[in-house]
Amino acid sequence: MVLGAGGFVGTSLCRRLAEEGALIVGFGRRSRVDDAPFPGTWVDGEFEDANAIARVIDGADVVFHLLGGSNPSASNRAPATELQTALATNLSLITEIIRANVGKLVFASSGGTVYGPAHHLPISEDAATDPISAYGLGKLTTEKMLRIYGLTEGLNYTILRVANPYGPFQIPNRPQGILATILKRAVEGKPVEIWGDGTVVRDYLHIRDVCDALVRSAAIDSEHRVLNIGSGIGRSLNEVVQSVSAVLNVHISVDYKPGRSADIPANVLDCTRALQALGWMPRVSWEDGVRDTAAWLSQLA
Amino acid sequence: MVLGAGGFVGTSLCRRLAEEGALIVGFGRRSRVDDAPFPGTWVDGEFEDANAIARVIDGADVVFHLLGGSNPSASNRAPATELQTALATNLSLITEIIRANVGKLVFASSGGTVYGPAHHLPISEDAATDPISAYGLGKLTTEKMLRIYGLTEGLNYTILRVANPYGPFQIPNRPQGILATILKRAVEGKPVEIWGDGTVVRDYLHIRDVCDALVRSAAIDSEHRVLNIGSGIGRSLNEVVQSVSAVLNVHISVDYKPGRSADIPANVLDCTRALQALGWMPRVSWEDGVRDTAAWLSQLA
Repeated sequence: MVLGAGGFVGTSLCRRLAEEGALIVGFGRRSRVDDAPFPGTWVDGEFEDANAIARVIDGADVVFHLLGGSNPSASNRAPATELQTALATNLSLITEIIRANVGKLVFASSGGTVYGPAHHLPISEDAATDPISAYGLGKLTTEKMLRIYGLTEGLNYTILRVANPYGPFQIPNRPQGILATILKRAVEGKPVEIWGDGTVVRDYLHIRDVCDALVRSAAIDSEHRVLNIGSGIGRSLNEVVQSVSAVLNVHISVDYKPGRSADIPANVLDCTRALQALGWMPRVSWEDGVRDTAAWLSQLA
Repeated sequence: MVLGAGGFVGTSLCRRLAEEGALIVGFGRRSRVDDAPFPGTWVDGEFEDANAIARVIDGADVVFHLLGGSNPSASNRAPATELQTALATNLSLITEIIRANVGKLVFASSGGTVYGPAHHLPISEDAATDPISAYGLGKLTTEKMLRIYGLTEGLNYTILRVANPYGPFQIPNRPQGILATILKRAVEGKPVEIWGDGTVVRDYLHIRDVCDALVRSAAIDSEHRVLNIGSGIGRSLNEVVQSVSAVLNVHISVDYKPGRSADIPANVLDCTRALQALGWMPRVSWEDGVRDTAAWLSQLA
């Protein structure tokens, strides 16, 4: 069962799971950009609707929880409300997962927000977790709740702290997914808007690598419950713009806006533990990934 | 303003604040064991009643937040509900504190539960925080929310991760406060009940030292926002029983019960940061503290 199956990550994950021969139940809002028939059983529903999830979760061997919710900047406009809403949704969901006796839960957490400002790069799973947004704190508290249910109820789970995913099926001009947005603006010959001076460094991971880690997590029992999933390479926003400019062979003008307080300066993940636990490492090079994303966007237009 | 002024810590803190000449507003449920007139303005109220707090919080220079809520074992009977209730209460409260433009918030967190099982003793503030109870997670998430409000709203706060407090005004036979319970049972000649084999190690801190740290936190601006407040000394439950036996000069029989899953094996706090930030260190010796507590309990009976 994939919760959030119509989202960016969910769309690719379901295709991948179908290739592997899995029987899939997808739950969420339908994808706006994928016209292909859903490769399994589709259930329309909102994440806040625990009853809707309860009706379809029984019998699932594995649940992938990809529910995104808000985003870091938006979440800090009303942090208390954001946190409570995110936790109410997640806690109802976990309660249902335990009731349904699901074999394994794979929770997509946020490698970009749970740590907060890094004292050391790349960031290992044992680093301090001091999120500066309610969005990140919601993810972190959900992680720690899974741990408690693991101890008290024997819940079997793996938490993937996923870096900034990019690639096909990511919709441009949204708060998350800067590469898609830059590509689209560049193709349209429009200036790119950047919050801050473009030196903000992030760890970008191609969706194929994200899905590979998710699928491996479902199958493997490891003592390691929390795994960073990233490229391990930091790129500034200015470098991303340069990459797009090189791939498309166009000039891109950048419109620098004031920085956002929910943005940390740099985030790069140390993913050596995922190699040990899952035999996973990133495979898609940045250059191939940017080209791949550009190709998908061009056929979308 | 002291939230939880009628509780164990609150009762002593208000007496101490009055000695220092502070104008005190106490909020909460009245103390059941302190017959003295409250040394300030008393407001009866429940912590869940944000409106009641809103009506009295304006004008407070310093708010001490001592609201206990549940306890670790009870909290794990329904972890999701416990966490949501604790956070709903704390987040409403923080929202009010920000609205009222309070000068300083001192939050009593839980040094015994936010860390979870320790990898190294004594535990420093930078150690991993993996609580094994919803109670501990509620405290931890509240801490991290204070941090976010510090960044986004300029909230001025200090978090004290207080060890196991003991001393006068702690009521025996409650889930928290094992020394008072052991003392009372010993005086009555009854056997003492211990969960587990008595090797569980805790850091016990006399209430006078706790209050000293709270008062210092109110007055000092430090870059350190999170401080351990403990004795730095670990004592097993069996050692506590021995100390009581020695002070009262009686034999105590112990009834060992099965251990509780929400109990970590050992918790001892490294409090060197509090010395730097507050000029604080524990002053009351364990032996004096046990005698002091025994004396208070004997005049209560």
